[in-house]
Amino acid sequence: MPVNLHSPVAQDLLPVPGVKLGVTEANIRKSDRRDLVVMTLTHGTAVAGVFTRNRFCAAPVVLCRQHLAASGQIRALLINTGNANAGTGEDGMLRARRSCEALAGLLNCADNQILPFSTGVIMETLPVERVVAGLPACVADLAEDNWLNAATAIMTTDIVAKGASTRIDIGGRSITVTGIAKGSGMIHPNMATMLGYIATDAAVSQSALDAMIHYAVNRSFNCITVDGDTSTNDSLLLMATGLSGGDIISDIHSAEYKALRDAVTQVAVQLAQAIVRDGEGATKFMTIEVQGGRDEAECRKIGYAIAHSPLIKTAFFASDPNLGRILAAIGYAGVEDLDVNLLRLYLGDVLVAENGGRASSYVEADGQRVMKEAEITVRVVLGRGRAESTLWTCDFSYDYVKINADYRS
Amino acid sequence: MPVNLHSPVAQDLLPVPGVKLGVTEANIRKSDRRDLVVMTLTHGTAVAGVFTRNRFCAAPVVLCRQHLAASGQIRALLINTGNANAGTGEDGMLRARRSCEALAGLLNCADNQILPFSTGVIMETLPVERVVAGLPACVADLAEDNWLNAATAIMTTDIVAKGASTRIDIGGRSITVTGIAKGSGMIHPNMATMLGYIATDAAVSQSALDAMIHYAVNRSFNCITVDGDTSTNDSLLLMATGLSGGDIISDIHSAEYKALRDAVTQVAVQLAQAIVRDGEGATKFMTIEVQGGRDEAECRKIGYAIAHSPLIKTAFFASDPNLGRILAAIGYAGVEDLDVNLLRLYLGDVLVAENGGRASSYVEADGQRVMKEAEITVRVVLGRGRAESTLWTCDFSYDYVKINADYRS
Repeated sequence: MPVNLHSPVAQDLLPVPGVKLGVTEANIRKSDRRDLVVMTLTHGTAVAGVFTRNRFCAAPVVLCRQHLAASGQIRALLINTGNANAGTGEDGMLRARRSCEALAGLLNCADNQILPFSTGVIMETLPVERVVAGLPACVADLAEDNWLNAATAIMTTDIVAKGASTRIDIGGRSITVTGIAKGSGMIHPNMATMLGYIATDAAVSQSALDAMIHYAVNRSFNCITVDGDTSTNDSLLLMATGLSGGDIISDIHSAEYKALRDAVTQVAVQLAQAIVRDGEGATKFMTIEVQGGRDEAECRKIGYAIAHSPLIKTAFFASDPNLGRILAAIGYAGVEDLDVNLLRLYLGDVLVAENGGRASSYVEADGQRVMKEAEITVRVVLGRGRAESTLWTCDFSYDYVKINADYRS
Repeated sequence: MPVNLHSPVAQDLLPVPGVKLGVTEANIRKSDRRDLVVMTLTHGTAVAGVFTRNRFCAAPVVLCRQHLAASGQIRALLINTGNANAGTGEDGMLRARRSCEALAGLLNCADNQILPFSTGVIMETLPVERVVAGLPACVADLAEDNWLNAATAIMTTDIVAKGASTRIDIGGRSITVTGIAKGSGMIHPNMATMLGYIATDAAVSQSALDAMIHYAVNRSFNCITVDGDTSTNDSLLLMATGLSGGDIISDIHSAEYKALRDAVTQVAVQLAQAIVRDGEGATKFMTIEVQGGRDEAECRKIGYAIAHSPLIKTAFFASDPNLGRILAAIGYAGVEDLDVNLLRLYLGDVLVAENGGRASSYVEADGQRVMKEAEITVRVVLGRGRAESTLWTCDFSYDYVKINADYRS
């Protein structure tokens, strides 16, 4: 069961002027479920995207990159679940293109003004004729208050729909930021079977929007991991319609930019954490803080060594304050000159290890108390500098094995 | 259950002239089980060791390194299970030293002629008084035909005792190589809660023995992984007593050196593979071959990405030929300029993927046939060079989670 996570209700997800969403059941892999989403963007919307770095990136990811580079004006997004159109070679590219052509025909725009996204089973042929057949119903369904339906339609192994909204005031104007995401397994930096869409009605220049998405993703989706696998299809889009009016935000040192950037980052963090809370089989939400490092890179190395260790993840599942496994992971993280006698390890607020061993003040009852919680913070203080890094992850349960042994993702 | 692995019987493990072993029940953590081993080496035995690179290496590992560097003449090994004496700080060092002193007293040698080894629970105080109390019984038990008892006494979560022997002819003399090992989880390159002891009665110079152990470990223990965690205590020892007589092998280009090196490597491979076959919860033994790379490093990167992926390991547990997960792992392994359209992927003898997608000749029934076997070879042909690398690993089962959620290792 997801850890402290509930589906938003429709009113939680504020409409973003200039963005409409439509969904339908297109029977792409299963019947009786929504599996196709169209999102249209008003003229003049700026769009920025970040995509998986997997060398086996899926056909729609290739096409998204091409269309973003070629077209100054994206008009719509097309998202299907049930099939990832990944590992499908040249035929997969043809099918992704065909789906863009069909939507472009309905919307009277150019093919390269459409961005396609797919998630679901890998290495199977995308039934593009079902995508095409479903498009008119999606277009007929387009509405600004349809974010929750879209969040539901993009789910795969997700148990809970994921969405977040916030509203801020910039220069006397009310600005909305709303986002939805899907993903539960294979979550890792450089992203994973993760799709995320964040929109705002603020007016933002392309270069400022590009800077903003990188800032936000490095503090949100790139700080989460469920099982260390990265997928072929991960994509995050940030869209700014400009319909709020007001000056275009283009100076990344301005107060307006920072206010919007922080609101976008806040929504991205909520979505990213929701993905971890809904991690396959998750029973615990873990925050891994590594502090006092020489640089952020070494803090992240140690954080990931902890977050990826199956031994630690199973111990957390068992609520076992198994300090040895955490110290062993710190030791093999690859920080060659780490002096283990200088570091301190905390579970929650409890100092558990220092001077190369168990803290003299530590009693196991204190560690057990922390481990019984559904949300646990592991904090490592390296004592060799001022850099820090925070990651979020979840535990490894019987259900993780069950889900991934049974489900053909 | 271990995959195609049975415990050796006593006659399988050939005595090595000059090596005696004694075991006892010292009640270190549990009663009614052998948990203490002494191994004595005749005068003139050459000893080489490789140890964990974990920054949190245990007290006995620190002491082993010191004693090997300081003493030209190791006289005995002292091994306890039940407690790893790791993450125990300065007090752990004192206790490790105390155990060496006690055995040195019984054997009339210097403290630094003893090498100590510990395995078991981490971050708990070694009950050194029980180790010391058990030593006289170990010494009274010393015998050359005691290898199987020693293999049994060093087990922790192992289900099956691990040992291997071979005999070769070098220059008309019969040479024996016998080894034992323990380990089942946390197996990884740079080694893991793994202890291995290989002895021969050949006469080998120190420098040739040092070269030989690195050659053997790089083709055996450094090619296995169960869950990617590396432990604080891993150690492999290679000992050459010289009692076979004959010239001392010192030229690493000689036929004699190569014959012995290959015999030692063969024993090391058998022991390493036995550790994977006995991996915690293992139901499948997987060989990951990566060929056609530009260099061995990139082949190993891709091999480990496959071998460490929980998604792939759970799919193998389910006998599911989930090609997409394997291709995704190849894609995120970190080989930046990999052209996925050039690679071919095989499950056993079945070509399953090429040209960036599913092979046109592939039908899932063929993949299923391979996946149902207890031993499965995944072969990736990168098509960009001539380097290759082979790894061995096992699958991830419900029992892996159960063992590691329940057991305080």
